[in-house]
Amino acid sequence: MSQLYKKATIVGVGLMGGSLGMALKGHGLAEEVVGWGRNKDRLAAARELGAIDRGTLDMGGALSGADLLVFATPIGVTSRIAPEWFAAAPPDCVITDMVSVKGRLVDNLTGLAGPRIYYAGSHPLCGSEETGVGAGRADLFEGKLCLITPVPKTKKRAIGEVQKLWQALGMRVISIAPTRHDQVVAAVSHLPLILASALINQIGDEKLLRFSGTGLLDATRIAGSSPAMWAEIITENKKSVLEEIDRTLETLMLVKQHVKSGDPARIKTWLQQARRRRRKM
Amino acid sequence: MSQLYKKATIVGVGLMGGSLGMALKGHGLAEEVVGWGRNKDRLAAARELGAIDRGTLDMGGALSGADLLVFATPIGVTSRIAPEWFAAAPPDCVITDMVSVKGRLVDNLTGLAGPRIYYAGSHPLCGSEETGVGAGRADLFEGKLCLITPVPKTKKRAIGEVQKLWQALGMRVISIAPTRHDQVVAAVSHLPLILASALINQIGDEKLLRFSGTGLLDATRIAGSSPAMWAEIITENKKSVLEEIDRTLETLMLVKQHVKSGDPARIKTWLQQARRRRRKM
Repeated sequence: MSQLYKKATIVGVGLMGGSLGMALKGHGLAEEVVGWGRNKDRLAAARELGAIDRGTLDMGGALSGADLLVFATPIGVTSRIAPEWFAAAPPDCVITDMVSVKGRLVDNLTGLAGPRIYYAGSHPLCGSEETGVGAGRADLFEGKLCLITPVPKTKKRAIGEVQKLWQALGMRVISIAPTRHDQVVAAVSHLPLILASALINQIGDEKLLRFSGTGLLDATRIAGSSPAMWAEIITENKKSVLEEIDRTLETLMLVKQHVKSGDPARIKTWLQQARRRRRKM
Repeated sequence: MSQLYKKATIVGVGLMGGSLGMALKGHGLAEEVVGWGRNKDRLAAARELGAIDRGTLDMGGALSGADLLVFATPIGVTSRIAPEWFAAAPPDCVITDMVSVKGRLVDNLTGLAGPRIYYAGSHPLCGSEETGVGAGRADLFEGKLCLITPVPKTKKRAIGEVQKLWQALGMRVISIAPTRHDQVVAAVSHLPLILASALINQIGDEKLLRFSGTGLLDATRIAGSSPAMWAEIITENKKSVLEEIDRTLETLMLVKQHVKSGDPARIKTWLQQARRRRRKM
């Protein structure tokens, strides 16, 4: 793969930002990968792990000469710092973010992009229960799906450039409106986390946990993820998450009727639909 | 391990019965392992796979001289055929079953055991999404937990003998009352299956399944299991399953309030509890 960037700047070098740096360097896509953060030690760790060529605490230094800027910070931080970064970004800079709830953020950030700034939102569907650059992997993005979330105001060139970035890292790319994106991730990501946590929390007697088999272990694996990160995501995606919880309440009321009927055929049909769809996944 | 049985008879040679045969033979625990079934071809397959030494369609032949009898048939079949088998079992025969809902069945079967018949119910907590002897494995039980479910009428010797069987196969054994057992498996096994199926079934648009990441894949793995088998289990365990569904409805109402509040700290605390417990599992 040929070099796409002279200077790629990653804002926040945790699991996602660190993996991005490793992947950019692994594919030889950037002449220099710079990491910005608020903690010297963490930047030093990222450099030692080969996630970045250079770390800096200084926005000006991070931005000067950058032709790619990727926010790999949590939602709240990203919203808060974006205005300053967008205002100081050099002309023709391509900007994206990796935040997992898009609605409000993409609207805000699109509004910040001046005439020669090319911003489109991204959500690479990969990650793990782990956090921090220590869990970073150069192949985290390989073969995975990335959702790009343009709004009507998003520049065509921005969409093309951001698409090029993720495809160069081996991702399949799909465009989807931010509001639709948020509904989708509520169903396929945020609700599963909530149900996994519910499964664990409602086991009243902790001693019962020793009776758990592979089924429960698999079903609750995501509940091992960062509570602070997820609490922020769920709060940000409140509307769609509440819709999904309401749909689950309805689904469970239906299942309850099936079970109450005492007719195994009714539950069987419902389980068959789930198995058929599961096999498609 | 020394030989424990002259003739071990397994009723039903699917995944569980077949694995039991392989394990008994692997550990050299029985002089002969006989499989009983209603289908010649399946018995032949079990023999070819080394799960049994001999297959038969004849109850009399299967029982004559047996000092161990294990029902590895589904709940309904087991309840239906047990009276005839118990009546024809030779004196001093040790009998158990591997059915995963115990309440009614253990009561019935305990009532069938004459003075020199030693019956106690078992539930080895292992298995897989697969079915059939082809998926059988000699080490399926190794290191796993087996719940033995005595009632007040269960003979002491029966408990001891059944315990000896599973321990000889490398299982840890815990005794638990059948009614309590059914509550426990409703929480750690039957509810997870229902929630996994709910997660899949309520994704209205099947096209969205392609957006599913590792989290959803893990969370829904058990939904790939046999719908007919699970429908029978859930129906049999109706009371406890309905209690678990009601508890889930309450839990989700609570989470809904947390999310509605817009205060990430409330969700975070709830998620933290789940993560702490998950790590204990």
